[in-house]
Amino acid sequence: MQLSVQAQAQAAKEAAVALQRSTAAVRQQLLHDLGQTLLARQADIIAVNRQEVAEQAAQGLSDALLDRLTLTEARIQSMADGVEQIASAPDVLGETISSWQQPNGLEVRRVRVPLGVIGVIYEARPNVTVDAAALCLKAGNAVLLRGSRAAARTNAYLVNIISEVLQRQGLPSELVQMVQDTSRQSVLEMARARGLLDMIVPRGGAGLIRTVVETATVPVLETGVGNCHLYIDASAPADMAISIALNGKCSRPAVCNAVETILLHQDWAKQHFDRLAAELQAAGVGLRLCQQLHQRLPGSVLAQASDWSEEYLDLTVAIKQVASVDEAIEHIRRYGTQHSEAIVSLDEASVTRFFEAVDAACLYHNASTRFSDGYALGLGAEIGISTQKLHARGPMGVEGLTTYKYLVSGSGQIR
Amino acid sequence: MQLSVQAQAQAAKEAAVALQRSTAAVRQQLLHDLGQTLLARQADIIAVNRQEVAEQAAQGLSDALLDRLTLTEARIQSMADGVEQIASAPDVLGETISSWQQPNGLEVRRVRVPLGVIGVIYEARPNVTVDAAALCLKAGNAVLLRGSRAAARTNAYLVNIISEVLQRQGLPSELVQMVQDTSRQSVLEMARARGLLDMIVPRGGAGLIRTVVETATVPVLETGVGNCHLYIDASAPADMAISIALNGKCSRPAVCNAVETILLHQDWAKQHFDRLAAELQAAGVGLRLCQQLHQRLPGSVLAQASDWSEEYLDLTVAIKQVASVDEAIEHIRRYGTQHSEAIVSLDEASVTRFFEAVDAACLYHNASTRFSDGYALGLGAEIGISTQKLHARGPMGVEGLTTYKYLVSGSGQIR
Repeated sequence: MQLSVQAQAQAAKEAAVALQRSTAAVRQQLLHDLGQTLLARQADIIAVNRQEVAEQAAQGLSDALLDRLTLTEARIQSMADGVEQIASAPDVLGETISSWQQPNGLEVRRVRVPLGVIGVIYEARPNVTVDAAALCLKAGNAVLLRGSRAAARTNAYLVNIISEVLQRQGLPSELVQMVQDTSRQSVLEMARARGLLDMIVPRGGAGLIRTVVETATVPVLETGVGNCHLYIDASAPADMAISIALNGKCSRPAVCNAVETILLHQDWAKQHFDRLAAELQAAGVGLRLCQQLHQRLPGSVLAQASDWSEEYLDLTVAIKQVASVDEAIEHIRRYGTQHSEAIVSLDEASVTRFFEAVDAACLYHNASTRFSDGYALGLGAEIGISTQKLHARGPMGVEGLTTYKYLVSGSGQIR
Repeated sequence: MQLSVQAQAQAAKEAAVALQRSTAAVRQQLLHDLGQTLLARQADIIAVNRQEVAEQAAQGLSDALLDRLTLTEARIQSMADGVEQIASAPDVLGETISSWQQPNGLEVRRVRVPLGVIGVIYEARPNVTVDAAALCLKAGNAVLLRGSRAAARTNAYLVNIISEVLQRQGLPSELVQMVQDTSRQSVLEMARARGLLDMIVPRGGAGLIRTVVETATVPVLETGVGNCHLYIDASAPADMAISIALNGKCSRPAVCNAVETILLHQDWAKQHFDRLAAELQAAGVGLRLCQQLHQRLPGSVLAQASDWSEEYLDLTVAIKQVASVDEAIEHIRRYGTQHSEAIVSLDEASVTRFFEAVDAACLYHNASTRFSDGYALGLGAEIGISTQKLHARGPMGVEGLTTYKYLVSGSGQIR
């Protein structure tokens, strides 16, 4: 019999109590065990996954999605390494964030505690199942996972492995559950499971995120949509600027921290636009150019108004010439998604202005936007890159999966 | 002509840019000026308010609400003192929360910045107009205020004073606006002003908060509803326990940190319940007793199942006998609103258990739940007491009105 989202969330909430009472050593042992078990069961995981990939191929799933669905030895190794890294990271639960004494003698401590139950809604990649579960467990939370139907069998098998490990460590298997109802309705039910889920994290396209935000009564942590800009200032060294542009656009065009629009100071453009354009084109990048640059490059494509808002997620980039750092900032204010924005410049005043005026999770000076990632910024594993301002912003790891409480000790004080 | 909520929010968003560029000194000067101007205009404020109170009285507004609406010299002094205190508090904008260097040489800084535009929805009290505006400005935010219709004239006058002060300091008056549309529809429009408002804070009854949460696409900061418990352990000294119980229930019964249910360990109840009941009754408190205690007190009122969930907000308290600290914890888990919960005990094991297992913003040992307040806990002025876990929990001051961004400096790093 299929359990409802509410029934599963209720079970998760009850199970969370046991994890909250566990020690850091138990949580570490649990994650060590999970990493090792994933490797020990590699062959079985691949067998289950291979069958699912074959079925999905027969049903016409696209090559790109089949690739995301496929688990190889290397991918399982990487999943296990990720879990091991989370296991070895410092445990943040119970830490005193700050403490002080009040004049009346009250001792006040602010202490880090788990959020409770997290809902994660995601698309094909089965590695998210393991990553998200490991991060949530590290932070003392239960998690309700809602993966895509195409990966249902692989995900179920991975969650079975997690359940075994939980039970072996004396913890309830309800701490990590796949949502059994894979209809679209289940997404809405998660979004409205107020009082049962403490946060939901939709990881996926803009459509999924919009649906969740529109219907949610549970607090949502928005992730992912990135219309990222690279602004090349008048003083930017050409080699550095072009290297950062190529890296930002080409190293992994389908991810949210890839560059979608390049803004060129007109003085820089005058000298170096031809080379930038040639190098991008040589790397297979299609260009959408503003009126002025379009006129300089015969046979080029003129950008439409919609190009400035486009998150291409492929080898296409929009390029626009601007008269000043302020015009660049204004363009980013208008079209940016507050994800990651970069400036290449040797002029301190421009950099200071850019860092102060641009409102985004991550700002870069003379570095690629592609560094917006938990590991790459030194924050450890991440559950996603938050594009909202409340709670957690930018790459969000274990700390973003916690909250705090005030513990106040007295000797009979009244007010 | 009346502006729409969207038009006002858009104007606030544009105005916010000017405040974000301001220095800490300008923000401090602005708030000093506001505090002084409120005092200088005391007589005018009282004249406007007196007329509004008279009109509302004529229209049949209840005495309790008329009292909340009324501004006296003392209340204006207290408002001005509050603003002065906010002015003098340390400025948190631009502070580096943490910083580190990555192995590849990237310098990463996490820096505190304003949220942007805050919406505050509240009921009669006009002092909230000034408190909320001052806190939002201190944190570099614009604010859209939606007060109740009964206080419309007083609020408008106060916002006019704030506008004058803003203009005198060279800042746009759109930084602080009262919502011009006072229909119920405007609350819903604020809740759905996604992309324009960065957070909304509904301050009011459970009905208002539910409406906002149900319809919001803007992130909500929930405040206020408190079904707070006092657990008196077996080892609790009778004098201390009774003093904390009386303070929790009687010092200000209408506020969210007042005690609504007292849980008594059966051993303590055996010895001291009669005295506790007598002292509460002498203070005018009506008792709703569990079956066992009801039988001990002739003529007493038996609690209904609904009493355990009730936020009385008046001189009524529910009392229940429990067999252990764990039974108390379980009761709080079931009926609490994660606001403020207290234990009186001399037994370290009970206190540790209570502090670990109870999930609430503020936990007290041998102290009154009435300390859940920004000033009383040493956090400074508060915009409200958050009862949610995301972003800010418990009394929420200037820091809760900010977010952060990562500033990453390199020398051409790519990934």
